[in-house]
Amino acid sequence: MVNAQSDMEVSGIVKRNPTAEALIAASRGFRIYTPDAESQDAFNKAYIKTAGNSVKELLEKSDIAIIATPDGKAEEYVRMCRNLGLPAIIQGGEDHELAEVSFNAAANYSHAIGKKVVRVVSCNTTALVRLLHTLDNEYGVEEVNATIIRRAADPNDIKTGPINALIPEMEISSHHGPDVLTILPHINITTMAVKASTTLMHLHALHINLLGEAMLPQIIEILEDQPRIRLIDGKTKIKSTAEIMEYSKDLGRPRGDMWENAIWKKSITLSRDNNQLYLFQAVHQESIVVPENVDAIRAVLELESDGMKSIKKTNKSMGLTK
Amino acid sequence: MVNAQSDMEVSGIVKRNPTAEALIAASRGFRIYTPDAESQDAFNKAYIKTAGNSVKELLEKSDIAIIATPDGKAEEYVRMCRNLGLPAIIQGGEDHELAEVSFNAAANYSHAIGKKVVRVVSCNTTALVRLLHTLDNEYGVEEVNATIIRRAADPNDIKTGPINALIPEMEISSHHGPDVLTILPHINITTMAVKASTTLMHLHALHINLLGEAMLPQIIEILEDQPRIRLIDGKTKIKSTAEIMEYSKDLGRPRGDMWENAIWKKSITLSRDNNQLYLFQAVHQESIVVPENVDAIRAVLELESDGMKSIKKTNKSMGLTK
Amino acid sequence: MVNAQSDMEVSGIVKRNPTAEALIAASRGFRIYTPDAESQDAFNKAYIKTAGNSVKELLEKSDIAIIATPDGKAEEYVRMCRNLGLPAIIQGGEDHELAEVSFNAAANYSHAIGKKVVRVVSCNTTALVRLLHTLDNEYGVEEVNATIIRRAADPNDIKTGPINALIPEMEISSHHGPDVLTILPHINITTMAVKASTTLMHLHALHINLLGEAMLPQIIEILEDQPRIRLIDGKTKIKSTAEIMEYSKDLGRPRGDMWENAIWKKSITLSRDNNQLYLFQAVHQESIVVPENVDAIRAVLELESDGMKSIKKTNKSMGLTK
Amino acid sequence: MVNAQSDMEVSGIVKRNPTAEALIAASRGFRIYTPDAESQDAFNKAYIKTAGNSVKELLEKSDIAIIATPDGKAEEYVRMCRNLGLPAIIQGGEDHELAEVSFNAAANYSHAIGKKVVRVVSCNTTALVRLLHTLDNEYGVEEVNATIIRRAADPNDIKTGPINALIPEMEISSHHGPDVLTILPHINITTMAVKASTTLMHLHALHINLLGEAMLPQIIEILEDQPRIRLIDGKTKIKSTAEIMEYSKDLGRPRGDMWENAIWKKSITLSRDNNQLYLFQAVHQESIVVPENVDAIRAVLELESDGMKSIKKTNKSMGLTK
Repeated sequence: MVNAQSDMEVSGIVKRNPTAEALIAASRGFRIYTPDAESQDAFNKAYIKTAGNSVKELLEKSDIAIIATPDGKAEEYVRMCRNLGLPAIIQGGEDHELAEVSFNAAANYSHAIGKKVVRVVSCNTTALVRLLHTLDNEYGVEEVNATIIRRAADPNDIKTGPINALIPEMEISSHHGPDVLTILPHINITTMAVKASTTLMHLHALHINLLGEAMLPQIIEILEDQPRIRLIDGKTKIKSTAEIMEYSKDLGRPRGDMWENAIWKKSITLSRDNNQLYLFQAVHQESIVVPENVDAIRAVLELESDGMKSIKKTNKSMGLTK
Repeated sequence: MVNAQSDMEVSGIVKRNPTAEALIAASRGFRIYTPDAESQDAFNKAYIKTAGNSVKELLEKSDIAIIATPDGKAEEYVRMCRNLGLPAIIQGGEDHELAEVSFNAAANYSHAIGKKVVRVVSCNTTALVRLLHTLDNEYGVEEVNATIIRRAADPNDIKTGPINALIPEMEISSHHGPDVLTILPHINITTMAVKASTTLMHLHALHINLLGEAMLPQIIEILEDQPRIRLIDGKTKIKSTAEIMEYSKDLGRPRGDMWENAIWKKSITLSRDNNQLYLFQAVHQESIVVPENVDAIRAVLELESDGMKSIKKTNKSMGLTK
Repeated sequence: MVNAQSDMEVSGIVKRNPTAEALIAASRGFRIYTPDAESQDAFNKAYIKTAGNSVKELLEKSDIAIIATPDGKAEEYVRMCRNLGLPAIIQGGEDHELAEVSFNAAANYSHAIGKKVVRVVSCNTTALVRLLHTLDNEYGVEEVNATIIRRAADPNDIKTGPINALIPEMEISSHHGPDVLTILPHINITTMAVKASTTLMHLHALHINLLGEAMLPQIIEILEDQPRIRLIDGKTKIKSTAEIMEYSKDLGRPRGDMWENAIWKKSITLSRDNNQLYLFQAVHQESIVVPENVDAIRAVLELESDGMKSIKKTNKSMGLTK
Repeated sequence: MVNAQSDMEVSGIVKRNPTAEALIAASRGFRIYTPDAESQDAFNKAYIKTAGNSVKELLEKSDIAIIATPDGKAEEYVRMCRNLGLPAIIQGGEDHELAEVSFNAAANYSHAIGKKVVRVVSCNTTALVRLLHTLDNEYGVEEVNATIIRRAADPNDIKTGPINALIPEMEISSHHGPDVLTILPHINITTMAVKASTTLMHLHALHINLLGEAMLPQIIEILEDQPRIRLIDGKTKIKSTAEIMEYSKDLGRPRGDMWENAIWKKSITLSRDNNQLYLFQAVHQESIVVPENVDAIRAVLELESDGMKSIKKTNKSMGLTK
């Protein structure tokens, strides 16, 4: 998606193993760097072309690094970037403390402008921040209680279960609540997390106590106006996370990605003096942070100073239309 | 479990098909009645002994009927009982309106004494009522928000999915909230329900707003004192519904049944001025209402006037010890 | 995919309900016909444009009909086509007897030329025929024993289970064996079928008794030469049906479709005098018959007389490259 | 089950962690030994009584050791037993070479008499050997092709997947075929293995080439006569592994265990000159080797010289009746 932007270009990618993914990347013309000579050998044996065998070499040819290593492994590469004077984007699996700012394009784009280390928050946090920021701007958010039903493994992860169990996270609030505070520090939020036997999407059951009184049609209008929130209409007959994934495929999205918060319109419920809001939203863990990373690059490199303009540019380039 | 009571005896059971279940029941000496001559033929062909081929015949030999037909099918049999002057117990899948009272042994045993039609509420409602009644007695319960993650099918149901999806219930509150009110009408409760791909247990993520201030050790003590609530200790290393089911098997429970609310002790969390309570509880949909049905019989037939005495008698006979 | 062919054009599609799928089809410019005025009303209310409200109207504007109704429902539409003198393609869920010929492009393209009713065999049969036809041509196939581990539901089907069970088909051979014979009548094949809790792909465990002696490198070469068989190389690290589906997505295939038989190269095993062949292949039930339907149109309408030329044309238009 | 035998008594068990399982074992009066003082401390803190903190101490009080450590970890304890002159039973996850003989009670009880290290083969191998030994005795078995659809994780294992995939074992024959040869060395068997997303039972799709001609009623009679093979009758309506597990629960078996091969009677199929036999059998991985371990003790300690007598004694003590 970086390559889809008119103001960006991928200088290269780092891959350790000559997997199917690497082969496809090479066939699309991406310059592949291996982290060392040994992995480069493995690529050679698999007849996959490489451009070099050192991360440093690639960083020196780049203006910024997107570090998407497994959770907790970014620190080494952040240090490498710092030594080279290169800004870096890290992901939500890393500690907030490793970055200068935790980032969501709609909520705090401007805070990332010109920063050196920016952390794009995780999929669940991104979805929560997009929604809560919007509601908070309009009505004020007094208190949030969220139950996060997590997909236990990604579709390509065949090792991780459970096959037939529900696994609650004993710590309440789960880490998601405090993570929202890295961007929206004034929100009073408690999250409870449960792992379920599914690979497709996370699901949030949300109870939001609004400060001001709200009206259902207005809430719907506000959410529909958000560039990265998609209301799922009842007429679509979409009742589940599985059918949202099918919908994305039918939309022709690359890899069937759903980059938006998917909120079931019919579930949006107001009660008691019109300030208690309930709703369900689904979160595609594999792709929801993709546009956020693109915007983070734009902010860090000061390619655009207005967050909403960056969001619209990114969305348009990706084909994220509603 | 009715036969395990010293003051009760099963006069017979009604089965339509000569399945493995029926064969086992016959081999244990239960008198089997078929609903008609045609099904009796099928039993004869399967060499399963029957005692008769009419529901009425069995009812005439009985003091009370437990109607456990598929959801929504009880009405016909309630009418039959009424005509014979026989009291009847119906299950939570039936409408509250079909009964004189909806029943939970701990919460309203006395209301069922001498009644003609009593409804034992469903598995999820039973678990919610047991817990909320206890907390309400002690602290007062101001408001409850529950997310109910439902097992999508029972273990023997191989036709029902989903295999890989989460399915939220669009109606908020789901039917569980109003169902709690049939027993605890003054509780302000909203429930959100989601079906997950599991067969073992339901899971409740609960947020309970207490009226009075609470202390964690006291809450734990109160819950441990409840005869049908079991706290799962952290030392057991039980992290999931699957492991609770294993625990029940290891306890030697018949069919591996877990009749109690299973609450993870470690999840019990108090926050904000000690009046916001959070916890996770698991509910074994197949068995949690078994002891409640036994108590309902005792109340209806006025075999015991004190609910707590009935509960203790039932528990002891079943081997429900903690 | 019909529209992707230079010698074909979709005249219209029939949809009964204004679902998300219908909305997307309309937005892509497909002419939608409803089966009656009542469904047309539903489309109108959903602001989805329709071109007519009668199947007959669409058939009269068409040269051929692809009937993809639920299993066993095609007969009515075949009759309608016959009355209009229109040829029809039916799918593998229909009886062989409803068609003049059961069809697989590689095995019997020429048999369908100019026919009036042609049946494209089901996903599992298509995969078996592609493979067995190839091997039979080269070595002769004496006997086949196949265990077919079936995905129990499609990804968008959230109602069907099982969640945690294996369900063997009691009839041996399962219907797949005889179905292969509708195209390859001389093959001695027995199939055993088992449903598993997965939505992604079927998996075939195959034991093939070859008449002639074979050599592993030659078998691999022959299979690699087949335009709709894809060997999954060990270097890709693809170990499961889930990873094949990821691979399809990474290849940029629309909807992540895998139109080819996916055979694990490493599993291809020869034993005992080099005439016993064992291998595993995966079958994407949702898409494997798509190119076969395109070829069937071409045969029926005599747009191309050479099957291999049609296969290559179809593959190229679809982006089915290896 | 050892304690259920009139000629055996459990001298003690070794547990490393004070889990729920350990607590229950202690409450049933088993003497628990920890492997070291540190784990004993953990038990003390959990108020679980221990009898000692050394494996050696327990071995010195015992006549035989059942080593049921995780796969591949038995070697250390076998050595310890050897040094103490104590015979040992190891499990199927260990190498055949670690034992003097691999064991199945029906097939080679006599080979284990008086031996020092005996290996009870794994669940899948036990089921295959029970069946093939029976058929081989009667008809001769020329060739076996088995597809083994494996449960991917045990019910209490919440970490292991896959959630939605089928995973074929690339090596053909899988290790199960050669493992059968450790007991029945003359059988020509090839096995193909696939992991499925289920926790309950393995499923075998079997194709057996008999030397002699067979008749269906006779095969059924022979299998029904086997003390550890259970034919599942069509009248039970049991169609899946899930329903077999329910059946075991309904039978009142401890932990719902199914110790027998469960063969669907209706699936038993003969074809081509009555010497090609096909059938499906299900294997309860958690319990099928329990009676075999009991018999192995009896053989090793020479408590009984006749295998069939031991099998019947074990079955009766366990409540394994048909």
